[in-house]
Amino acid sequence: MKTSILLASIVATLSGNAPEPAADGKLRIICFGAHPDDCEIQVGGVAAMWAAKGHHVKLVSVTNGDIGHWREAGGPLARRRKAEAERADQILGVTCEVLDIHDGELLPTVENRRLITRLIREWKADIVMSPRPNDYHPDHRYTGVLVQDAAYMVTVPFFCPDVPYLKSNPVFLYYPDSFQKPNPFQPDVAVAIDSVIQKKLDALDGMESQFYEGGANGSAELVPNDPAKQQERHRQVRGFFEKRYQDQAQRFRSKLAEYYGHEKAGSIKYAEAFEICEYGRHPDQNELRKLFPFFGE
Amino acid sequence: MKTSILLASIVATLSGNAPEPAADGKLRIICFGAHPDDCEIQVGGVAAMWAAKGHHVKLVSVTNGDIGHWREAGGPLARRRKAEAERADQILGVTCEVLDIHDGELLPTVENRRLITRLIREWKADIVMSPRPNDYHPDHRYTGVLVQDAAYMVTVPFFCPDVPYLKSNPVFLYYPDSFQKPNPFQPDVAVAIDSVIQKKLDALDGMESQFYEGGANGSAELVPNDPAKQQERHRQVRGFFEKRYQDQAQRFRSKLAEYYGHEKAGSIKYAEAFEICEYGRHPDQNELRKLFPFFGE
Amino acid sequence: MKTSILLASIVATLSGNAPEPAADGKLRIICFGAHPDDCEIQVGGVAAMWAAKGHHVKLVSVTNGDIGHWREAGGPLARRRKAEAERADQILGVTCEVLDIHDGELLPTVENRRLITRLIREWKADIVMSPRPNDYHPDHRYTGVLVQDAAYMVTVPFFCPDVPYLKSNPVFLYYPDSFQKPNPFQPDVAVAIDSVIQKKLDALDGMESQFYEGGANGSAELVPNDPAKQQERHRQVRGFFEKRYQDQAQRFRSKLAEYYGHEKAGSIKYAEAFEICEYGRHPDQNELRKLFPFFGE
Amino acid sequence: MKTSILLASIVATLSGNAPEPAADGKLRIICFGAHPDDCEIQVGGVAAMWAAKGHHVKLVSVTNGDIGHWREAGGPLARRRKAEAERADQILGVTCEVLDIHDGELLPTVENRRLITRLIREWKADIVMSPRPNDYHPDHRYTGVLVQDAAYMVTVPFFCPDVPYLKSNPVFLYYPDSFQKPNPFQPDVAVAIDSVIQKKLDALDGMESQFYEGGANGSAELVPNDPAKQQERHRQVRGFFEKRYQDQAQRFRSKLAEYYGHEKAGSIKYAEAFEICEYGRHPDQNELRKLFPFFGE
Amino acid sequence: MKTSILLASIVATLSGNAPEPAADGKLRIICFGAHPDDCEIQVGGVAAMWAAKGHHVKLVSVTNGDIGHWREAGGPLARRRKAEAERADQILGVTCEVLDIHDGELLPTVENRRLITRLIREWKADIVMSPRPNDYHPDHRYTGVLVQDAAYMVTVPFFCPDVPYLKSNPVFLYYPDSFQKPNPFQPDVAVAIDSVIQKKLDALDGMESQFYEGGANGSAELVPNDPAKQQERHRQVRGFFEKRYQDQAQRFRSKLAEYYGHEKAGSIKYAEAFEICEYGRHPDQNELRKLFPFFGE
Amino acid sequence: MKTSILLASIVATLSGNAPEPAADGKLRIICFGAHPDDCEIQVGGVAAMWAAKGHHVKLVSVTNGDIGHWREAGGPLARRRKAEAERADQILGVTCEVLDIHDGELLPTVENRRLITRLIREWKADIVMSPRPNDYHPDHRYTGVLVQDAAYMVTVPFFCPDVPYLKSNPVFLYYPDSFQKPNPFQPDVAVAIDSVIQKKLDALDGMESQFYEGGANGSAELVPNDPAKQQERHRQVRGFFEKRYQDQAQRFRSKLAEYYGHEKAGSIKYAEAFEICEYGRHPDQNELRKLFPFFGE
Repeated sequence: MKTSILLASIVATLSGNAPEPAADGKLRIICFGAHPDDCEIQVGGVAAMWAAKGHHVKLVSVTNGDIGHWREAGGPLARRRKAEAERADQILGVTCEVLDIHDGELLPTVENRRLITRLIREWKADIVMSPRPNDYHPDHRYTGVLVQDAAYMVTVPFFCPDVPYLKSNPVFLYYPDSFQKPNPFQPDVAVAIDSVIQKKLDALDGMESQFYEGGANGSAELVPNDPAKQQERHRQVRGFFEKRYQDQAQRFRSKLAEYYGHEKAGSIKYAEAFEICEYGRHPDQNELRKLFPFFGE
Repeated sequence: MKTSILLASIVATLSGNAPEPAADGKLRIICFGAHPDDCEIQVGGVAAMWAAKGHHVKLVSVTNGDIGHWREAGGPLARRRKAEAERADQILGVTCEVLDIHDGELLPTVENRRLITRLIREWKADIVMSPRPNDYHPDHRYTGVLVQDAAYMVTVPFFCPDVPYLKSNPVFLYYPDSFQKPNPFQPDVAVAIDSVIQKKLDALDGMESQFYEGGANGSAELVPNDPAKQQERHRQVRGFFEKRYQDQAQRFRSKLAEYYGHEKAGSIKYAEAFEICEYGRHPDQNELRKLFPFFGE
Repeated sequence: MKTSILLASIVATLSGNAPEPAADGKLRIICFGAHPDDCEIQVGGVAAMWAAKGHHVKLVSVTNGDIGHWREAGGPLARRRKAEAERADQILGVTCEVLDIHDGELLPTVENRRLITRLIREWKADIVMSPRPNDYHPDHRYTGVLVQDAAYMVTVPFFCPDVPYLKSNPVFLYYPDSFQKPNPFQPDVAVAIDSVIQKKLDALDGMESQFYEGGANGSAELVPNDPAKQQERHRQVRGFFEKRYQDQAQRFRSKLAEYYGHEKAGSIKYAEAFEICEYGRHPDQNELRKLFPFFGE
Repeated sequence: MKTSILLASIVATLSGNAPEPAADGKLRIICFGAHPDDCEIQVGGVAAMWAAKGHHVKLVSVTNGDIGHWREAGGPLARRRKAEAERADQILGVTCEVLDIHDGELLPTVENRRLITRLIREWKADIVMSPRPNDYHPDHRYTGVLVQDAAYMVTVPFFCPDVPYLKSNPVFLYYPDSFQKPNPFQPDVAVAIDSVIQKKLDALDGMESQFYEGGANGSAELVPNDPAKQQERHRQVRGFFEKRYQDQAQRFRSKLAEYYGHEKAGSIKYAEAFEICEYGRHPDQNELRKLFPFFGE
Repeated sequence: MKTSILLASIVATLSGNAPEPAADGKLRIICFGAHPDDCEIQVGGVAAMWAAKGHHVKLVSVTNGDIGHWREAGGPLARRRKAEAERADQILGVTCEVLDIHDGELLPTVENRRLITRLIREWKADIVMSPRPNDYHPDHRYTGVLVQDAAYMVTVPFFCPDVPYLKSNPVFLYYPDSFQKPNPFQPDVAVAIDSVIQKKLDALDGMESQFYEGGANGSAELVPNDPAKQQERHRQVRGFFEKRYQDQAQRFRSKLAEYYGHEKAGSIKYAEAFEICEYGRHPDQNELRKLFPFFGE
Repeated sequence: MKTSILLASIVATLSGNAPEPAADGKLRIICFGAHPDDCEIQVGGVAAMWAAKGHHVKLVSVTNGDIGHWREAGGPLARRRKAEAERADQILGVTCEVLDIHDGELLPTVENRRLITRLIREWKADIVMSPRPNDYHPDHRYTGVLVQDAAYMVTVPFFCPDVPYLKSNPVFLYYPDSFQKPNPFQPDVAVAIDSVIQKKLDALDGMESQFYEGGANGSAELVPNDPAKQQERHRQVRGFFEKRYQDQAQRFRSKLAEYYGHEKAGSIKYAEAFEICEYGRHPDQNELRKLFPFFGE
C-alpha cells in the first residue's frame, strides 16, 4: 500500500517504485570516478551503449587529476587531463565533467557531499555509479564515501534547497575491484561490451597522459621518440585494456549467464559489471533489465 | 587476577567487571539516534520497560532534524521536532535531549566526539546504544562512528577532564538494520515489547511531523483535512509500526528463544533486538540478563 | 611484460616487483602505532630481530600519548612517554619517533596523510606496519586509516613533491587484534620471537607510565611504595606480556607451521603475526620470507 | 615601461592598466553581499543605472539568508528570499545569484575563496564590490574577507585552473558602513541615484520577508491584516530607505562635489558611495569616471 | 518612530532601546576571557561591585588554561586552574564557568560561535565583555573575534534555535590593553574599584598557578620553600596588581572625571575601564550610567 | 625587580630583557615569507649583511609557490622554485627552507601555528620577521597572522612540548608594504644595504621563474630566445629591484637618519626597513642597535 510506504523514508526510498521515466523516455545515468579516467575505465563500454540508444550519460571526475603523472603536475596537468577526458567522452558519446579538486586530497566533507548531491539532482539521475569505499587509492575510497553520503540525501527536499530534489532515490551501483576485505565485490549485473570495445579502447588510448605515458607511476622510457616504438606503445595500451575486459568477462561469466543465458554468455568476450549499493534504491532483476536495456539484443 | 587485568587498558575496559551499581541500585541507559525519532523507533519499547522499573533512560537525538520534512525546515522545524520528541519521551517515561546540530551535516569531528563523551559520562551510563556505522543515512552512519569513537574514551580521565570519567567502559549496543555489507546485524539480545507496544505506538504516532506527515519523503496528500481520513492516516501509522515490530519478533525469534525459552518466545508478538559493539565492554549473557531484567517475567 | 605492468598504476604498485635492495643490502621497516607503546607491544620482538641483523627499523608513535595516564597528562606526560619510548627502542635496537599530536584527537586529515607519507618515504621503507582500521581506540582506527591513505600515495611523485617518492609501493602489514567485525584479523605471516622475548619484556617493562602504573585505566594502588611490592608489580607486568605472546603463538600456530614446518612450530613459545594490507604491494610467501629472514634459523 | 611593470606581480596587478574593454564595449560589474538584500541595499541604485546603459551587473548573495526572519527559517525561507532577490534584481535590470550557504555560518575557507574567485572570473568583472571586513554581522565581515582573499588571486592562472583567469585585477570597492574602528569608511566615489530612486525603492519594498516583515528582528506586529495598515507599512519601508539614501547624500556631499561640481552636488537628493579596496587595482579618478559613466549627465 | 526602527536589523539592534529590565530588576553581565584568570584581571573589581549590589555576573574562561604553567599541563592543570577560578569568583561573588577547550588552540569556528552565543543568551545578558581582537596572545584575539561574531547573532531567533534569543542586542565592551595598532584602546567608561581592591587582590592572589607560580613564563625560583619568602612572594603578587590598577586609574583619569567629576576622580586610586564594541548596542552615557550604577556613590 | 616582572607573562615577554647571547655570541634570525622570493625581496640585503658577520639567518617560505607562474604549476614548479630559493640564499649566505604547503591556500590553522612555532624555536631566534597581516595577497596576510599567532606561544613550554621553548620572546618585525588601511607601515629601523646591493640583485636575478619570467602575471613575451634580448631582460630585472631599494631609501630617509645621523643617511642609496610587531618583545633603540650591528660602520 502506497501510503504506508511513505511512512518511513528508508522504506520509501530504498524499496520504492522506480521513478517516472523522463520526458523523453530516456534513462539518465551519472557516474563518478576519482580521477579523469576512472569512469572511462570502469563504465566506458556500457556508457557508450546507453549513449548509442539515446540515453543520457554523464561521467564526472571528482578530482582534477593534477598529480596523476610522473613528469607534469598542477594546473597544466589538470587542463591536459580534462581535455583528454572530454575527448574520450566525446568518443563514447557522453557528457564530461571534471571537478577542480586537488588529486590526492579529496575528503568526505559536507561541502563535497553537497557538490555530489547537486550533480546527481541536476542530472535527474536514474542510476548513479561510483567506486566502493574500499579501494587502493584514498581518492577512490572517499569518492565512494561521498557518493554513499549523497545517496538518500538527494531525495531530501531541504538538503541543498537550491536544487530540485529527486522524488525517487536512484539506483546506486559500484564498479568492480579486486579487494577482498572487509568484503569482496559481488556483481549484481554484468553486461557484454563486445559491440563497443573498439570505441572504448579508442577512448582510453587517447587518454595519453594516463595510459600511454603511464600516469603517476610511468617514466620517460614509456615515451619513445621512434614512431615505430610509439605505435608499439599504443598497441600495448590497447592490449592491456583488451585483456582487462576479457578477464572481467571471465570473472563475471556466471552473472552474464543470468542475464544473457548460458549459451550467449559463453561467447561474450568483453564485459563490465556492477554491484548494487544498499543505500540507493534496491532494484530487482526486472528493474535492472530496464535500466540496462541490452540483454535482449 | 585483577592487577594483571589493569595492565593493558583494552583488557581492563573491554573484558572488565561490570561497574558498581548506581547509588539507587538502578541501571542507567543512554541511547543515541541521528534524528528526533530514531531512538524512539529503535528502542522505545525496551526504554519504556526500563523506565517502568525505575531505571534511568535518556534518548539523545544527535541532530535537530531540521530538514526532516517535505514542507518545513530550519529552526521552526527543529523546535517542532524537539517538542514532538519530548512528548514521545514523556509517554515512554524517559529523558529527552535533542542536540542543535544541522540535520544532514553531522560529521565525526573531535568536537562532536567530546559532546557524545560528556553526555555518556554525565549520564553515568551502564549501557550506550547507537546505530551501526553502516546504515542508509549519512547521519546514522556518523552517529555510529561518533559513539564508537567515544567508546573507551569515556574511561580516559584526561579526555574531557571537565567531566568525571567512567571507571568502567559501558556496554555499547547497536540497533538493528537490514544492511548486509560489509557484514549484517547480528542480534546478541532480543526483548519482547508486547507489554508496552501500545505505549510505543502512542509515542510514535505523536511524532506527527515525521510519521503522520511523512517526514522528508512525505507530501501534502498524506495530510488530509477530512477527520475520517485523518483517523485513517493515524491507523496507518500505527499499523506500519505494529507490523515492523512483529517482523522483528519474527526475524529475531531464535534469539528470543535463547532468552525466554522456545515456548515463550513463540508467543512473543513484538520485539526489539540489539548487537554488542566490540569497542565497549563485552558482557556475557549473564550480564546481559542483568542489564535487560525482563526475561524472568 | 614490464611495460604493460606500467600501464595501470594499481597493477604496477600492488603486484609489482619488490624494490631494489638498499645500498647497504639491508631491509628498511617503519611501524606506526597510535601511542608511545603500541609499536613496541605489537612488533617489538620482530623489530629487535631485524635490528640484530642490521636491518633498519623505525617505530613511530602518531600521537604523543598525552592523556594516557590516570594521574598525569599534557606536555609533561608527553615528554615522559617519549623518553620511555626512546629507552625501550634503544633496548630493541631501533629508531624512535613520537609525533606531537594530542592523544585522543587524531583525525585522518590530509595534513596527517602527508606527515605519514613523508615518514614512509624518508625511511625508504620496504615494509610499513600499522593497526587495522577497526580496533577499540579511535586513535588506533585513525592510525590505520592514515597509513592506508598513505599507501600508494608514497609512490606518486607530485604528492608531497618535497620528499623523493618511492619507486615501489612497500608491503603494508597490520598488527593482530581480536575484533571480528566487519572481518577478523587473518595472519599472513607469523614469527617466533623466542630469541628476543627477554629483550622485548625489558623494553615493555621500562615503559612504566603505561604498564607498571597502568596507563589511562590505572590507579594509585598499582604504584606501591614497598620495594618488595614494586618488584612483584614488575613481575606482573612481565608475566602479563609473556602470556600475551604465548597466547599469540598458540593462536597463530598453524601459520607458524607454514613458515617453520610443523615440528619446529610446535616448540615455538612466543610469536608475533601480521596480515597483509591489500592497499600495499602484494607479496607472495617467497617475498615474505625475504622480508622476514628468520625462518631458516 | 610595460616590461618592468610585469616584473613584480603586485605592481602589475595593483597599478596596472585597466583591462581592454569587453567585446560589446560594456562594463562588467559583480557585487557581493552576505544576504539576499545586502547588494540591493548598498548598490541597487548605481546597479540600475549601469544596467540602464547596457552594462552587465550581477548581484551575488553569498549566503542563502535562511535564518533571516523572525518566524520562518531553513530551506523554505531560503527559497522565498531567493525569489524575492530575483524579483528585485529584475526590477533593477540586473542578474541575480544566491549561493546556498547557511546564513550565519559563512567562513573564509579556501573552498569559499575559490567559489568567489570563479564567480568574479566567469563574470569577467571590471568592478567587484563587497562589504568591508569590519561590519556588525559576521557574515558581512567574512564576505569582506573572502572577496579580499579572491582579489589578486583572480589573476593567477593556476589558482582554479578550470576557469579562465583575468588578465587584469579588477577594481575592488567597498560599500559604506558607519563603523569607526579600526578605521572608518572613506568614500572614493559617490554617485547620485536620484534618477532611479523609485526603482530602487520598488525593488527593496518587494523584498517583503526582510523589510516589510522586519527580517530576523521583526515580529508579528509588523504584519497587519488590515489593508490600510498594510499600505501604511509599505509606506514606512519606502520612507525608511528614502531617508537612508538622503542621509548618504548628505554624508558624502563633499565627495559628490568632486565628481559633479559643487552646484550640481548640492541638489542631489539620494546617493550611494564606495571606497577603493587597496587589494584590487588602484584606479585614479579618471578611471573611476569611466567606470561610473554618470557624472557628465 | 519605533516601526521604522524595526525595518533594518542593524538599526534596530545597534541603536535600539535598552531591553526591559530583568524580572528581579537586576542587571545581568557576562564576561569572556581566554584563560582562567583573564576575566578576573580585567573586570574583577567592577564584577565584585555589581555582585555586591545583587546584579548577576558570570565570568567565562573560553579555554581551560591547560598549558598555562611552566611545570604542569594538560587535564590536571585544567582542573587546578578551574578550581582556582571558582575560588576567585567565589571571593568576588560571581558565577564561574571554564570551557574545556585546549589553551593555545582556540579558533573562531562556527561551533565556538554557537557556544558563545548560547552562553550569552542563557545568561540573558545586558552586558557582554571580552578582549579586543588585537592583543598579544592568539587566544585573546580569537576570544575577541568569537564574541564579536556572536554579537548581533544573539538576537537572531533561528541561529541556535534551541536557546531563546535576546530581544535586544546587549552592550558589548572591551577590556583595556596597551596595543596601538591598528588602533589603540579608547575608554568609554572608567570605574573606580577602590572599594573592592582588597577583594580583587585576594581573588587574584589565590590563583596561585598563574600568578604566585608565574604561569607559563614562571619558574621554580618563584616557588620558595621558606615560609618567609613565600609570604614575600605573595606580597609581590599583590603589589604587582595593586600597581596595575593604580596605573589604570592614572591612564584613564580623564575618563574617570567624565563620570565622577574632576575632584572625585582625582582621588581615585584604582580603576578599571572599558571600550564600547561597535557591533553591540550603542549605549549613550546615560545608559552607561545605568549599566554601571556606581557613579553617584 | 625581576620577580615582579615574572608575574604576568605579557609583561615578562613583551618588555623583558633580551635573551642571553647564543653560545657562539652570534645573533639568530628567522624570516618568514609567503612564497619562495618574498623573504629575499624584503630582507635579502640585511640578511646578507648579518651572514657576512657570522650571524645565523634562515629564510623560510611558508608555501611552496606552486602556482606562482603563468605557464608552469604544481610539483614541478614547487621544485624549481625551491631550487631557485636555495641558490639565491646561497648567494646571500643564509639557510633556506621551503615548506610544502600549496601556494594560494595558506590558512591560519593551529597545525600551521605549530609549524611556525617549531621553526622559530628550533632556530633559537632572536629576531623573527614576517609580512604584516594586511597585504595584497592572502598568503601574505595569513603568513602575517600565523607568525603573530606564534609570537608569545614560542615561550609557552607546553605548547609544542616536543621542541624546547624560548626563554625570551624574540623581537618580531614586519616588512614594509604600501597599504594604508587600517594603518600604514611605520618603520622602526632602517638599514643601508649599499654594501650588499649587488649580491642581493644577483640573488633576485637568479630567481628566474618569478622575476625574469614574470611569475604568475608574466607571459611568453618576457622570455625571449634572442641572447641579446635575454641580457636586456636580465638588466630590466636588476634595474627594477635597484630602483625599489632606492625608493625605499628615499621613503625611509628620516628613519635612516635616526640610526646613521643625517649626513651619512643622506648618502645611503639602498635601504631596507622594518616595523616592530607589538606581540613580540618590545626592543628599545638600544637593543635594536645590537640586533642590527651595522650602524657604526
